[in-house]
Amino acid sequence: MRRDILEEAQKRMEDLTKPPRSLGYLEEVAVRLAAIQGRVKPELGRGAVVVAAADHGVVAEGVSAYPQEVTRQMVLNFLRGGAAINQFALAADCEVYVLDVGVMGDLPDHPRLLKAKVREGTRNLALEPALTREEAERALEAGRRAARRALAEGATLLAAGDMGIGNTTAAAALTAGLLGLPPERVVGRGTGVGEEGLRRKREAVGRALARLRPGMDPLGVAAELGGLELIAIAGVYLEGYAQGVPLVLDGFPVTAGALLAWKLEPGIRDHFFAGHLSREPGHRYLLEALGLRPLLDLDLALGEGTGAVLAMPLLRAAARILHMATFAEAGVSRGG
Amino acid sequence: MRRDILEEAQKRMEDLTKPPRSLGYLEEVAVRLAAIQGRVKPELGRGAVVVAAADHGVVAEGVSAYPQEVTRQMVLNFLRGGAAINQFALAADCEVYVLDVGVMGDLPDHPRLLKAKVREGTRNLALEPALTREEAERALEAGRRAARRALAEGATLLAAGDMGIGNTTAAAALTAGLLGLPPERVVGRGTGVGEEGLRRKREAVGRALARLRPGMDPLGVAAELGGLELIAIAGVYLEGYAQGVPLVLDGFPVTAGALLAWKLEPGIRDHFFAGHLSREPGHRYLLEALGLRPLLDLDLALGEGTGAVLAMPLLRAAARILHMATFAEAGVSRGG
Repeated sequence: MRRDILEEAQKRMEDLTKPPRSLGYLEEVAVRLAAIQGRVKPELGRGAVVVAAADHGVVAEGVSAYPQEVTRQMVLNFLRGGAAINQFALAADCEVYVLDVGVMGDLPDHPRLLKAKVREGTRNLALEPALTREEAERALEAGRRAARRALAEGATLLAAGDMGIGNTTAAAALTAGLLGLPPERVVGRGTGVGEEGLRRKREAVGRALARLRPGMDPLGVAAELGGLELIAIAGVYLEGYAQGVPLVLDGFPVTAGALLAWKLEPGIRDHFFAGHLSREPGHRYLLEALGLRPLLDLDLALGEGTGAVLAMPLLRAAARILHMATFAEAGVSRGG
Repeated sequence: MRRDILEEAQKRMEDLTKPPRSLGYLEEVAVRLAAIQGRVKPELGRGAVVVAAADHGVVAEGVSAYPQEVTRQMVLNFLRGGAAINQFALAADCEVYVLDVGVMGDLPDHPRLLKAKVREGTRNLALEPALTREEAERALEAGRRAARRALAEGATLLAAGDMGIGNTTAAAALTAGLLGLPPERVVGRGTGVGEEGLRRKREAVGRALARLRPGMDPLGVAAELGGLELIAIAGVYLEGYAQGVPLVLDGFPVTAGALLAWKLEPGIRDHFFAGHLSREPGHRYLLEALGLRPLLDLDLALGEGTGAVLAMPLLRAAARILHMATFAEAGVSRGG
């Protein structure tokens, strides 16, 4: 992020033909986009979303409203264009890439499916470490590779999405583990689990957190808790940051992955834009910790990257603000 | 709006490959778009925004932070593409039409400028009726004609915008007059007037409201208070409703115009979507009265239709929801 461009864009913002601050939060977004792109008049083209998919051993604890096989079935749905993320991406000039880092079962070859299975699902985080450190490292690298492909194919704006039955349990564990929060604060109903399931989720997360030791590094914590797709999401964002593009966050699991990326690379926060505020209770803590304001608040709780892709047109519009005429250019009188 | 399609779309919504209600408010939007278009899988193409412009005699009271000449200067800025609405429209596949229903001074010919000046500004609403009834009728008809042109040229989604120095004073008067609210509730700082200006705005509105008589019809109230562009905005929406397209609202002045349209044609509410919640305090009362939830809440207070056009991509994305695969179509297991 270029501080000199940030200041120059801020100065230009004050001269544009509009009342001061009348574009609210979008003015801050515009100026930050300028600094990220290193030009006072930023422009955003094509977007990309990498939907990372993997299974979770913790589903054995009865933490999800859906059977595990749905992870693989939904990946097939993504590849055929039938899911929400496909439809939103169509409407937002965004390419969808699907990254298999740990789905149970085989998947067919497909031009948009990146095959990088580390293992078939994590181990059960309620009972043992979800991953070895080496597995976690491989998941992170798979995310980086997926982002490299998306960027090489022309993405100017990068988001991550998630698919994994059981992953709000892993995301709650990762959030609590990295932020030092008690499980009650971050465990929610996910895709719609009942009262009993909610209790089991809290218990599973509590047991996993009890294994953490002071002084563990962020990737060590992530290996202990999983999941593969959450760590891959961190890799997607880290690569996007390294390549200097704006990064759009989605809901709870994706933002938990983004939190891991931030713990590994604090500078990345400057590139983050929060697409939306999810209904899932833990999401609020993540956005607070990252100091991010969500662009949308529509009671979404779907995942797949849907809330991030919905926000892409807002980021494109915000970039256009700095292309407006100034008072001097347009011959408009200033207010007093 | 087709009630049978509404029910059919609601039923389809429950079968789509996502957890129930996981797309929050956008599910309601999608179903309503289906009913408006009369097809279970709605599709939105090009949008259009009609920016109605006019001046206000009430500026003589010192109610605005900007001089009156800015109305005409900003219209020229719209025609040259330098304003916020132009830039947002570019990013949202939306055509901009500018409608002069009462700007002080001459304007050049331009393919996107619709010339329908009723008079050069309203009379001062603090002192006398802003318009005659016949002038109000002509403003309403000018709005209808502008919408007919936009729709004839391919718009599938219609918004209105406003430009008029002094128009938050007229919008506050119209809101208070039509909803029976005291001036303090609906008068705000507009484009940034100071404490003294705010007091003068309240006084001007109070004096105008004192002239209203019980039993006046909505257009009679609007003629008393103005402004020309607010009444034209009502006309834009009334024509859009007659032609069966979805209608997107902007901030305070535009929603005051929409309120007038609703008082004239209560069925129109089914076609309204609130683009955003403005910082201007009176806007909240308007949305409450209309029973509408805003899609965006970004502290905008610019007008011109900016908040409506920003929301257009969200409406397009919402329409796509009903194009998702069902559980049966995709072979995905349902939750329990």
